Amino acid sequence: MAIRVGARPILAPGWSGKEHAGIALVDCDVHQTVEKLDDLIPYMSRVYAQQAREQGFRMAGSGYFNVAGDISRRDLASTDCDAKFDGHKVGNTYEQLRDQHLDVWNVDRVLLTGASTYGTSVLPDPDFAADMCRAFNDWTFDQWVEKDDRLLVAISVNVNDPRLAIAEIERLGPDPRVKAIMLPTGSRMPYGNRFYHPIWEACERHGLVVGIHPGNEGAGMAGPPTGVGYPTYYIETRMARPQMAMAHAVSFIAEGVFEKFPGLKVLIDECDQFWAVGLMWHMDADWKSLRDQTPWLRRLPSEYFRGHIRIGTQPMLEPETNDQFWMMLEALHADETLVYSSDWPHWDWDDPASTFPKLPERLHQRVFADNARELFGIEDAVSDGR
Amino acid sequence: MAIRVGARPILAPGWSGKEHAGIALVDCDVHQTVEKLDDLIPYMSRVYAQQAREQGFRMAGSGYFNVAGDISRRDLASTDCDAKFDGHKVGNTYEQLRDQHLDVWNVDRVLLTGASTYGTSVLPDPDFAADMCRAFNDWTFDQWVEKDDRLLVAISVNVNDPRLAIAEIERLGPDPRVKAIMLPTGSRMPYGNRFYHPIWEACERHGLVVGIHPGNEGAGMAGPPTGVGYPTYYIETRMARPQMAMAHAVSFIAEGVFEKFPGLKVLIDECDQFWAVGLMWHMDADWKSLRDQTPWLRRLPSEYFRGHIRIGTQPMLEPETNDQFWMMLEALHADETLVYSSDWPHWDWDDPASTFPKLPERLHQRVFADNARELFGIEDAVSDGR
Repeated sequence: MAIRVGARPILAPGWSGKEHAGIALVDCDVHQTVEKLDDLIPYMSRVYAQQAREQGFRMAGSGYFNVAGDISRRDLASTDCDAKFDGHKVGNTYEQLRDQHLDVWNVDRVLLTGASTYGTSVLPDPDFAADMCRAFNDWTFDQWVEKDDRLLVAISVNVNDPRLAIAEIERLGPDPRVKAIMLPTGSRMPYGNRFYHPIWEACERHGLVVGIHPGNEGAGMAGPPTGVGYPTYYIETRMARPQMAMAHAVSFIAEGVFEKFPGLKVLIDECDQFWAVGLMWHMDADWKSLRDQTPWLRRLPSEYFRGHIRIGTQPMLEPETNDQFWMMLEALHADETLVYSSDWPHWDWDDPASTFPKLPERLHQRVFADNARELFGIEDAVSDGR
Repeated sequence: MAIRVGARPILAPGWSGKEHAGIALVDCDVHQTVEKLDDLIPYMSRVYAQQAREQGFRMAGSGYFNVAGDISRRDLASTDCDAKFDGHKVGNTYEQLRDQHLDVWNVDRVLLTGASTYGTSVLPDPDFAADMCRAFNDWTFDQWVEKDDRLLVAISVNVNDPRLAIAEIERLGPDPRVKAIMLPTGSRMPYGNRFYHPIWEACERHGLVVGIHPGNEGAGMAGPPTGVGYPTYYIETRMARPQMAMAHAVSFIAEGVFEKFPGLKVLIDECDQFWAVGLMWHMDADWKSLRDQTPWLRRLPSEYFRGHIRIGTQPMLEPETNDQFWMMLEALHADETLVYSSDWPHWDWDDPASTFPKLPERLHQRVFADNARELFGIEDAVSDGR
């Protein structure tokens, strides 16, 4: 087991890293990534494999320069892979995940959230996009899911063609390791729009969570990544993530998705947390004056939020004072809404030990294990490890 | 003085409404609005007056249904005006402002923020747009500013043609009652983009604040009002306001506007406050990793925010608990950043008495008077009234 210096575990207050029985640590955002998109060709239909061989995958770029160096930490996965993908080294393997994350930290379950195919949602051709998603899902099962019982998966679907998205959900949804679908924040419409409702119906029927993760900001058919057009620098697009998370969350709530599909849950990863607090406050206040416009809503917007939307911890709030940190967790109703997410192996990932101070015992249990167990219907016993 | 029931002052903790000497209450968001756009025709150039007479003002609508009834409170200005403007009754007069707000609450200064011409920024023809702005500014002086020394004005400019915007700033900026320019949130680009820098240079030179206020969301050339496209209902567009405020604020900071124009100040009205707190936390954290991309920044993003951006109080945060309210004011650095705004006479306006609990004395003084006095360079003595 080759651990590099930067990834060495630090026994910090958040998580001890100790061995334990049962479920004590669930990680809701781990990226499995092909080394190069050509790795998908063996899994694709003949015609689209041929298209990819001839003219590549035509993935839309947004033109923003990410962090200097690699988008994956050099001491983590990407150093073993010299290939470039869309200008970045991003390939990684199951064995790296096992050796650098699962075994080191004694992680009990991780949700594989992909990344390589987020861009399919802003490609014009819906059949090509769906074929790439299907290929990536099959690659994920072959190269990752079949190798370890700790791996759960959020499958990739083409959200711009509900019929094809549902076909993929029907194909893979019955597998108990499939727990979610994964969508990028960058989209043509807010996800509460009724265009998408047939997909949400299929997710509810199969008990799949709708996962949302930054991706495609300002790329291809997604259009401008803020409500006021295109910013200039990558650091600005990072601040667009909370904006997009807000737009999607408000849309799910206002457009009645959770009344229509009461079993549906949404997971929003890597968009910070503060916006969720402000959204609950602001939207509750607005709704009291404006509820005649959305008569299908029978509860406060914040109640839908707390009942149906879960927020990943990475990147975790960094307030100026400890008191502000605790107050924000309280205001977020973190014991209901917050789930641990590492974002392994990206440069800004959060390990489970040093990201958090020592949380009160019940809150620790909710954030590190129980909220995710309930979200994904993980029935294994909970552990008292922390 | 005809005060209607709903506007009767309530002696609540926030503001006593008592008479006092000096400056104790500055309101940074009061809307003066033409009864109908035709009222501008006498102030317009011959050719554009003729165009308006022939085919109207062609203002872009966003198609969202606002609150039921009028967008102005029926017990305030709009009841005296039966005209419809863009489907809403919005006209009001100086005399209504005086009788219903200034005299009732003993307000010392108000910033007239307009509204009738926000839509010019999403009109295709820049000369027509600029002519409407000039006409509205002249109407504002004639019908409002000349009548009362308590009135300050944020002039309307066409932000899509910097040359014309600067011409209007040069024309009116020397008047000491002109304290700002006023722009809508809905725009083609984030306002930190260097396209706009010549306008900011002119503002700095004349000591004018750049005011930003909701408007044009999803209308005309502004494009989609969120980073993920068009939401369906008005309540969703209200939640898009904090998103737009974030996008503009981040842009001003990241694109180096406050290094380039160190005297420039920005006022963001009617977009809530929570986003400003999260933005300072999140952007500071990001900047530590990414500052090599914006080498012109020499301080933490939050320091630029605290030094240059001011936030209106309306609509005021409505957290679940009092502790959360006080913590958010602390985290916002409200003693530096927060300025009282009423949004008179709109349906969701906040009077100065019942919006706030009794603030600690120094904080009260900062929010109700001193932050705005410093923002606008109001040199009159401060009062100890509250």
